[in-house]
Amino acid sequence: MKVLPDLEYKERVVRLQAMLEEEGLDGLLAHSHEADFANVRYFSNYWPIFESTGVLIPREGEPTLLIGPESEAFALDRSKIARVRKMMEYRESAEPDYPGVIVATFPEVIAETFPGGAPKRLGIAGWSILPVPVYQSLQKALPDTELVNANKILAALKMKKTDNEIAILKEGFRISALAMDAVLAELKAGMTELEVVGVAQAALYANGAEYEAHPLYVLSGPSSKHAISRPTHRVIQEGELVQLDIGARVCGYSPSLGIPYLVGEVSDDMKRAVKFGLDTHEKTIELIKAGVVAADIAKQIEEYVIKGGYGDNLLYGPCHGLGMLEVEAPWMEKDSHYELEAGMTYQVDTFLQMENYGFRWEQGILVTDTGCERLSDWDLRSNWEKACLHK
Amino acid sequence: MKVLPDLEYKERVVRLQAMLEEEGLDGLLAHSHEADFANVRYFSNYWPIFESTGVLIPREGEPTLLIGPESEAFALDRSKIARVRKMMEYRESAEPDYPGVIVATFPEVIAETFPGGAPKRLGIAGWSILPVPVYQSLQKALPDTELVNANKILAALKMKKTDNEIAILKEGFRISALAMDAVLAELKAGMTELEVVGVAQAALYANGAEYEAHPLYVLSGPSSKHAISRPTHRVIQEGELVQLDIGARVCGYSPSLGIPYLVGEVSDDMKRAVKFGLDTHEKTIELIKAGVVAADIAKQIEEYVIKGGYGDNLLYGPCHGLGMLEVEAPWMEKDSHYELEAGMTYQVDTFLQMENYGFRWEQGILVTDTGCERLSDWDLRSNWEKACLHK
Repeated sequence: MKVLPDLEYKERVVRLQAMLEEEGLDGLLAHSHEADFANVRYFSNYWPIFESTGVLIPREGEPTLLIGPESEAFALDRSKIARVRKMMEYRESAEPDYPGVIVATFPEVIAETFPGGAPKRLGIAGWSILPVPVYQSLQKALPDTELVNANKILAALKMKKTDNEIAILKEGFRISALAMDAVLAELKAGMTELEVVGVAQAALYANGAEYEAHPLYVLSGPSSKHAISRPTHRVIQEGELVQLDIGARVCGYSPSLGIPYLVGEVSDDMKRAVKFGLDTHEKTIELIKAGVVAADIAKQIEEYVIKGGYGDNLLYGPCHGLGMLEVEAPWMEKDSHYELEAGMTYQVDTFLQMENYGFRWEQGILVTDTGCERLSDWDLRSNWEKACLHK
Repeated sequence: MKVLPDLEYKERVVRLQAMLEEEGLDGLLAHSHEADFANVRYFSNYWPIFESTGVLIPREGEPTLLIGPESEAFALDRSKIARVRKMMEYRESAEPDYPGVIVATFPEVIAETFPGGAPKRLGIAGWSILPVPVYQSLQKALPDTELVNANKILAALKMKKTDNEIAILKEGFRISALAMDAVLAELKAGMTELEVVGVAQAALYANGAEYEAHPLYVLSGPSSKHAISRPTHRVIQEGELVQLDIGARVCGYSPSLGIPYLVGEVSDDMKRAVKFGLDTHEKTIELIKAGVVAADIAKQIEEYVIKGGYGDNLLYGPCHGLGMLEVEAPWMEKDSHYELEAGMTYQVDTFLQMENYGFRWEQGILVTDTGCERLSDWDLRSNWEKACLHK
């Protein structure tokens, strides 16, 4: 079982502190909840359930993990951050009272985290999920402090992966591939989408996953058209496309493999579109290399898809960042004016939305100086051809 | 497969509108995210993934479902609310730009949802998870509007369940029990906690669940002490207690069964404590009846536990509300000065935290005029005795 060394969590705090210095920030408050857990887990390894959580990191000195009133034994067991404080701001959304439970307040945790004096400029990571009660308590405790959206700082910190992170992502892809194999061996017309999810879940946990990388996609027929969706009790039919996105979470990292499964004989149009998607997917991988401008890849892929006759079916850019969340910054769109760097990891994510169905080819890559390395040795084309064309 | 009739969603909106009238509110904005999904799903059946969501309900007229930029096809397929609007405020937390995607703004959705003029007092449900960007956009769009925490209104609306909701909760317990049986048949020393989770997941999806009711608990040895926790790769040992909380989500409802499994021979102290917990659990069920004050049950159970010699091991009140979230209002604590009413549903949740382990007995009940009805026909005592004492 792969884990991140404790030292790596400590180094993240130190690297962040150097960035805070550069940006003229005196500290950072990162926020997470049960589903959107990465900001806090990145520094602490703590991953809440029911309650939410924050981590308060000063420019100098030791951080404080902020948790809900019911998670003390859990957090003390998991956290790589020694100082852990229970606070009402992080309780369950049903707002229990907790009579008799002693909790800390923001003035208290700010005083112990910033012993040299209150921060003048405090960055917030997870700005778009920061709850109003946390924000209002902060404003009250720090009336003279400027609160700044610092998502970009944390995104920059996370962007280039270490060797330990790469090893964990590869382990996640290894388990994802085993679950995909299990699904391909059992999927057939007459099963519901959710029954197929159960097959994947059994394989994920049997092979070492700590959780699903994201709510798994088994989207059949018209539901495959949804860019984002959830599986249902819909019964899978002959002649349909079933979009599969199967991912294993390992040590907080959330890689995923995506292929469109064809059930029995499908129309020639569908087969042609799906194959064109796979060509586009592989074309994208060929274009990735350190030094290339992200927008240039997005533009070239758009041109390629237009030329292929599917321009109206393209909704998004061809890649997105991969890390603790299956979707993280940076994006790769036509306005992405940054250069790829060795050590960045992406999901190459080729989605085409047709009139009555849609499909996605997806896998992870590591940007290198000479091109890119695939993070999974499960070959999409040969496995898909075996499962869908030569059955 | 059980589903809620469409009419029930419509009736919820109408009942809420009557409550808004009573409370002098002109509308309600309910917020939800991927994990904390109930506020919005209750009215719309829509349950987001990656993105967040809101529902804006005027005191008179039709509501509007607010979604992120990538979920249009998905939301249109699932939503029981006809008017669906994409907004940047509900995008993924990694803050993608979406070049070229057309989204609505709060002034626009407020104008179409409140054609008679902007609300003067707007309630917010899900206050403690409402993100700052949503709040700031609201404040900007409605500078003269009072924004009020309306969690209590929505909690009151949800509190008494309909016959359709009871039928769905029972179906959830039926599936939860099948998954618990599958776990009890396979759990043994040498397995990891997460391998046991995989057994439960396979059974949940094979028997009709749409998801886990909550991240499942398989907490062994010292981890069983955690009131809230997540399973790990820890290997289960002979002589340990493994806390199991297994629940199936059905149509958004999240019931769960909890028992402490004893692996092989355990200490007499542990056996005595666990049996006392079960007695306390059954004692709690005996006390439940319409007309009883919730605080009185909490007090009587506290006295019972103190008298039994476990007073220092009791952390929380004996029950919490059950509905779309496995934990919802109302609470049952010593300061819960309300009367139980027929139609309310609770999880009877008996948790004792010992020095080196902990355990929880948990099941769902429906309050009736004459007492209460168990929502699961899986009898905790006889099944536990069979699995743990007579193996």
